[in-house]
Amino acid sequence: MRAEVLSIGTEIMFGEITDTNASFIAGQLPQYGIDLLYVSQTGDNPERMKELFTRAWGRSDYIFVTGGLGPTEDDITREIIGEMLGETLSVDPEQERLLRARMEGSGRRMPERNIKQAMLIPSARALPNPRGTAPGWWVERDRKVIVVMPGPPAEMTRMWEHEVAPELERRADSILVSRTLKTTGLGESAVDEMLSPLLKGTNPSIGIYHRADGVHARIAAKAKTRAEAQRLIEPVEAQARAILGHSIWGVDDESLPAAIGHMLRAQGLTIALMESATGGAIASAITDIDGSSDYFKGSLVTYATEAKIANGVPAEIPEKYGVISRETAEAMAAAARIRLNASLGLGITGIAGGSEVEGQPPGTMHIALTDGEHVEYSLTRYYQGREAAKRRAVLNALTLVRTYLMARAAEGG
Amino acid sequence: MRAEVLSIGTEIMFGEITDTNASFIAGQLPQYGIDLLYVSQTGDNPERMKELFTRAWGRSDYIFVTGGLGPTEDDITREIIGEMLGETLSVDPEQERLLRARMEGSGRRMPERNIKQAMLIPSARALPNPRGTAPGWWVERDRKVIVVMPGPPAEMTRMWEHEVAPELERRADSILVSRTLKTTGLGESAVDEMLSPLLKGTNPSIGIYHRADGVHARIAAKAKTRAEAQRLIEPVEAQARAILGHSIWGVDDESLPAAIGHMLRAQGLTIALMESATGGAIASAITDIDGSSDYFKGSLVTYATEAKIANGVPAEIPEKYGVISRETAEAMAAAARIRLNASLGLGITGIAGGSEVEGQPPGTMHIALTDGEHVEYSLTRYYQGREAAKRRAVLNALTLVRTYLMARAAEGG
Repeated sequence: MRAEVLSIGTEIMFGEITDTNASFIAGQLPQYGIDLLYVSQTGDNPERMKELFTRAWGRSDYIFVTGGLGPTEDDITREIIGEMLGETLSVDPEQERLLRARMEGSGRRMPERNIKQAMLIPSARALPNPRGTAPGWWVERDRKVIVVMPGPPAEMTRMWEHEVAPELERRADSILVSRTLKTTGLGESAVDEMLSPLLKGTNPSIGIYHRADGVHARIAAKAKTRAEAQRLIEPVEAQARAILGHSIWGVDDESLPAAIGHMLRAQGLTIALMESATGGAIASAITDIDGSSDYFKGSLVTYATEAKIANGVPAEIPEKYGVISRETAEAMAAAARIRLNASLGLGITGIAGGSEVEGQPPGTMHIALTDGEHVEYSLTRYYQGREAAKRRAVLNALTLVRTYLMARAAEGG
Repeated sequence: MRAEVLSIGTEIMFGEITDTNASFIAGQLPQYGIDLLYVSQTGDNPERMKELFTRAWGRSDYIFVTGGLGPTEDDITREIIGEMLGETLSVDPEQERLLRARMEGSGRRMPERNIKQAMLIPSARALPNPRGTAPGWWVERDRKVIVVMPGPPAEMTRMWEHEVAPELERRADSILVSRTLKTTGLGESAVDEMLSPLLKGTNPSIGIYHRADGVHARIAAKAKTRAEAQRLIEPVEAQARAILGHSIWGVDDESLPAAIGHMLRAQGLTIALMESATGGAIASAITDIDGSSDYFKGSLVTYATEAKIANGVPAEIPEKYGVISRETAEAMAAAARIRLNASLGLGITGIAGGSEVEGQPPGTMHIALTDGEHVEYSLTRYYQGREAAKRRAVLNALTLVRTYLMARAAEGG
């Protein structure tokens, strides 16, 4: 099955928005055995849209369209498809009822031009859009499918998950299921070598990828059904888990903060931070996880040295060793742990800005973790601009916590 | 001038990366009077690439290409262009020298296949790429231009700014310059009405846009040169500034944290936070600005109620009014200000998660700001998932600070 994506919107042509819909759809298609060959974007322009739609209809089995479903005159995706297929648009009574109910429910009178959002062509059925006023279209003719979805990503992804994905799964000849094991502490070639007895198979296949948060092993299986594909993966996953053991810290799209959350909860631990150079970014990453209040006590974001001292760092430590030092990071970790009454304390001090401080280069980050007895320490030097330096420091701090928790779990501690 | 963008890379077709290069380029072109009509993406596939390049060459004056310049066999952008134009690739001695020097400088031996990165065709000149090994190409023939840039965004944007933009500016018949005034406290129609005496002009023209951080007025002028366009903008900007007065909080791509930073510095003030539901995200936004240590004292991220109390919130306040309350937010603001010895304290408590707490709905955020005498307060209820709730809360907290600082400046305080 050959597919292409058409993204419609003049705001894309002016660079006002980045087309994340296309990459979302692209990431979803492989599991249904659909090959994406082209993505095309153009503005709300009838000639150019007609050109793209006609070419796509000629060469692809599936066309996924986003945008151009709004109520204004500019929004002409429906009209262009009707014209291309030689079909007439007409108001669908059920869609009209839903549209009016929705507008009135939010207390507005519906402008009459909005009625176009209730229109269909004979080959189209409406796809519900509870997050907006424009239903999508599932158009089917001549063994080809056009799926039309609204441009706002929240509306599009909801429609994809509830309407489009299940339909694609029903129609798929085979389903590709994958399972990603995320590891730490091992290089790409080490993982490759360890898993080499498993790498010969083609279904499931295993791919090894080097990523910012460690090396990932991706097991992928193809079968008639999702359940069957999962059954193919299971024994291989079990073997891979036996081989990689405690190097695995997470699966699939589990993030580092989520994985740390699971481990903290499983081990009955809590954590507190004192952050300087990351300015609250570690705390913000940890609290992106639902339920993080169970194990996250808080973070003392002490940008100023006096704030560090006011929060329990002994004044003589930054004075003697410098603010940007291992010793200050360790004192910050200890102070956070005690001040916020947590099992673990993490301290980080460094330079996010572009100039040297205390003779240390931009991007220097001293990170310390303490459980009250032992101290773990990590030093990073990475600078590609302020925000990248912060991001990298967050990654390294979370990695330090993860490594500690994995070692503790391995010891049965 | 008609342009299109071609983005090449199999990883785009698998949704592994989002094509931010295309939206970057799209945002740059209007100032040179170049109309972007299409963006097309495809994988590293010779037939599909040839098809896209041939069509683009037939219909566009400028083709901007990113990707496919790597050293591997998959990377065939150079070969495809050579073939399309009937020109032979050959190693350019100067590019070879640079490539070898660069590889050796980083202590690696150059694999021989990498030599393709030093190749040119007769119609191409090399564009330097100090951030990577692959130079770009500026191809010119038959009054058409193909600009080829590397895929990694850091390499692409640097090449754009240093090599491509100056050349486009030299060639442009006219330059479009714009100035955006960002306002607060006024609705879209109010700004429209206030600026109506200025809206009649066509050069400069004024557009009014509603954005997440307020209403923007964008003044745009077209002229032979950048300097001339700027001269056209100046008097209109002065009039708009006189009309909008203290409602203007920033210009062009200035962010809310940057604008607040400027105002705090100008007024000689410092700020400290106590954050609960935002979990450090406000502090992280403030410290994304270089030099924020001048006015940012820190943030006490007190996720647990006990941590709020340990940091100076009187225990009876959350007990009597609830943790998610105006009173607790005000006590947090006061405690942050005192604990961290700042001129201003901001406190925020609310619900980032998806369930009700203390009878209040998800997304409820109580935000308070104090200068020791007066307290400003803001209540938000917005929930579209956890991360969106946090983002909105950060925006509203920064807006509260901005409004306070603007009022203070207006009073000459």
